[in-house]
Amino acid sequence: MNRPFVFINSAMSADGKISSRDRRQIRISGKEDLMRVDELRAASDAIMVGVGTVLADDPGLRVKSRILREKRKDMGQLKEPFRIVADSNARTPANAKILGPGCMIAVSYSAPEERLDRLRSGCEIIKCGTEMVDLPGLMEELYNRGVRRLMVEGGARLNWSLIELGLVDEIYIYIGGLIIGGERAPSLVDGPGFRNSFPRLSLQSVQRLDEGLLLQWELH
Amino acid sequence: MNRPFVFINSAMSADGKISSRDRRQIRISGKEDLMRVDELRAASDAIMVGVGTVLADDPGLRVKSRILREKRKDMGQLKEPFRIVADSNARTPANAKILGPGCMIAVSYSAPEERLDRLRSGCEIIKCGTEMVDLPGLMEELYNRGVRRLMVEGGARLNWSLIELGLVDEIYIYIGGLIIGGERAPSLVDGPGFRNSFPRLSLQSVQRLDEGLLLQWELH
Repeated sequence: MNRPFVFINSAMSADGKISSRDRRQIRISGKEDLMRVDELRAASDAIMVGVGTVLADDPGLRVKSRILREKRKDMGQLKEPFRIVADSNARTPANAKILGPGCMIAVSYSAPEERLDRLRSGCEIIKCGTEMVDLPGLMEELYNRGVRRLMVEGGARLNWSLIELGLVDEIYIYIGGLIIGGERAPSLVDGPGFRNSFPRLSLQSVQRLDEGLLLQWELH
Repeated sequence: MNRPFVFINSAMSADGKISSRDRRQIRISGKEDLMRVDELRAASDAIMVGVGTVLADDPGLRVKSRILREKRKDMGQLKEPFRIVADSNARTPANAKILGPGCMIAVSYSAPEERLDRLRSGCEIIKCGTEMVDLPGLMEELYNRGVRRLMVEGGARLNWSLIELGLVDEIYIYIGGLIIGGERAPSLVDGPGFRNSFPRLSLQSVQRLDEGLLLQWELH
């Protein structure tokens, strides 16, 4: 199967949480890290999130730096990477910031048609999978559309599904200097969790950034 | 209030889990880290865990190195640090490895007497708190018994309670190169979690160790 190079980028607290138990977004990193994330975005062909992240944070997933956007254009790329939501039941709100030119919503064949009708003006709909988005199939589809480098920006469930399916090559984790705590607070990788055999990572680089630390892990 | 210097030491996966969803202990670090933990233990006056950790892992909490034990003795200390369980309802099993000379079980006044009777031959009982162990009171009691440096080895609930009460000075976190995942897997700090104001940490040191990374955080 052909698929893009897939990497997750996420920030977590020192105790591994990506937001509070109310799923409220918390500023974990600082300016330096936000610039780094913008550069990672600009160097990707597409950026993907799960629908839970859209519902909780309503991210735009744009490249913020005008210089980086112009640079992409000069290199013959689209000004911004595609923005993709893994959204089995088409729960993305019709006013979500992610919608607009360059947005694709990946849904399953079970997604209600009336929801799809509400979304169609703001995005392209990709159908794959019976009840849940077929992620390996989606990866192949993205590859066929020219996506070679896919950045995943969470959340915890999408991270889980992709890692469980062996579809992740690298993980960038920014660790911020704070404790969030909470057994119900989302962590970097949720879902059911591994029980017997655990995916192994090797540490590629470590860098101090803002008040925290950036780790780059490679999946075996 | 006088209290010991308190530090947490814990190993977690790259995604912030300290064990799997079955609460099965997983080897996260390697030989170098185990030696480091032994040295931290030997340099402490007491080591504390929550009863959940006793029930899940049955740790002995001994100093493994004979050299380190002898060194303590040469310095006029007890051969090994005290071993303390925070155990409001006296659920520590009567055959727990932690029991024996130097073991103290901190219980509340609600702990059933018959359970205390079963434990008394293997430990000293410290009563403090009506329904739950009064942790600040316990800290003061330990200080009065000469404990100046207290090492906390989890679990997630005890870490939470101590941090929430402002009783922690430092946290050592070893991050291992694996993903555990799972929304129900214990993480470094569980309990209800913080919602509005989050304890801030500053990064004191970063060290590569075995296949992972050791972080030393100071609490503000």
